[in-house]
Amino acid sequence: MIKLIVLDVDGTLTDGNRLISTSAIKYIRKGIDKNVTFSLISGNVVPVMFALQTFIGINGPVFAENGGILLYKNQIKKFFDKTRAEKFLEYISKKSSVKPVFTNMWRETSIAFNMDDSDENYVSGEAEKNGLSIVNSRFTWHLMDKNQNKAYAVNYMKDQFELNYDEILVVGDSDNDVPMFNLNVNRACPANATATIKSKSDYVSKHRYGNEMEDVLNHYGIL
Amino acid sequence: MIKLIVLDVDGTLTDGNRLISTSAIKYIRKGIDKNVTFSLISGNVVPVMFALQTFIGINGPVFAENGGILLYKNQIKKFFDKTRAEKFLEYISKKSSVKPVFTNMWRETSIAFNMDDSDENYVSGEAEKNGLSIVNSRFTWHLMDKNQNKAYAVNYMKDQFELNYDEILVVGDSDNDVPMFNLNVNRACPANATATIKSKSDYVSKHRYGNEMEDVLNHYGIL
Repeated sequence: MIKLIVLDVDGTLTDGNRLISTSAIKYIRKGIDKNVTFSLISGNVVPVMFALQTFIGINGPVFAENGGILLYKNQIKKFFDKTRAEKFLEYISKKSSVKPVFTNMWRETSIAFNMDDSDENYVSGEAEKNGLSIVNSRFTWHLMDKNQNKAYAVNYMKDQFELNYDEILVVGDSDNDVPMFNLNVNRACPANATATIKSKSDYVSKHRYGNEMEDVLNHYGIL
Repeated sequence: MIKLIVLDVDGTLTDGNRLISTSAIKYIRKGIDKNVTFSLISGNVVPVMFALQTFIGINGPVFAENGGILLYKNQIKKFFDKTRAEKFLEYISKKSSVKPVFTNMWRETSIAFNMDDSDENYVSGEAEKNGLSIVNSRFTWHLMDKNQNKAYAVNYMKDQFELNYDEILVVGDSDNDVPMFNLNVNRACPANATATIKSKSDYVSKHRYGNEMEDVLNHYGIL
């Protein structure tokens, strides 16, 4: 039986312009009424996750910065540090097209940036040499500790809530969701997911951009 | 003809538990499709307003901290400073039940706090002596410069967009909306609004907590 549902945000609850699906909000609320715990894990920042938690009414922990920092019951818990990422940003900005983005002022465990596609291999390699990793979340690139990812966050909740993997369902659509799709949990995705995510999914919905929530919750017998 | 619609958030787009109305989201998007500019003004913090702007798809400026700070096209503009409010908080915390709240870490032009009801007159009087004012926004108290309020923000947009007051519609429900309801604009409110707001409104909807948006937009011929 599914006790915890972990949702990515951008592309999973929103469309390509980041507009949130009102259908997704409705069906998450229906799932919460069935006593399932919902969690969000996104590359976005804590106060944005606080807003989503508040206005949707998410009943479980929300994680920002790809799992690097948690917000639950108005308490923040930081699992990683951004000092190394900041130093690397200073270095790599001079050697590539890497440009930091607007929301970095609210980031505590990672750096977000944009860059030309052609720089991906170079920047990724340089980051790795520094114990860091980069990952793309549909709207931006993220630079962070090599162990910081959504699987870290899912495992944290598995321990905290004393769950088995088969009691957890993850839903996501893009590259930064891969680590949690590599766990032995239940995995579902919208029709707009990347080929990699689809290949790792137990259930691929025909619906997309948040409209898959009704379908996915029905498939797993939640509603 | 209405060209700018200014919306309060808590109690106007959300219910008493702060859950956002999916109907409000839908009708705001319909209004945007009709080329009306929508703006949000809330007592909440900039990154929370950034999240609402992004995920709802608000096309105009959003103001945080009751009009003290603006976010538009990824640029932030600060109109007030919180130094005096912070000093006052330190003083008044020792003399009353005033307790700062969680989201203050993201505030730049004001302080949010809770207190016992019985302290309201005392704290309000002491704030006034210091050139500050306090106002209640349904979920918390706000401490800020005496000139910082939602009318300031509406007047700023009136100038920026070169509008007349009769081209502006404001929708709100509670005490911190009063300053913008005192302007010579069009004014509407949900059924859950305070008696003061209702008495100042040109149109009082029968619907509440965000479900008034369809009704209000119809009343003003937007849809």
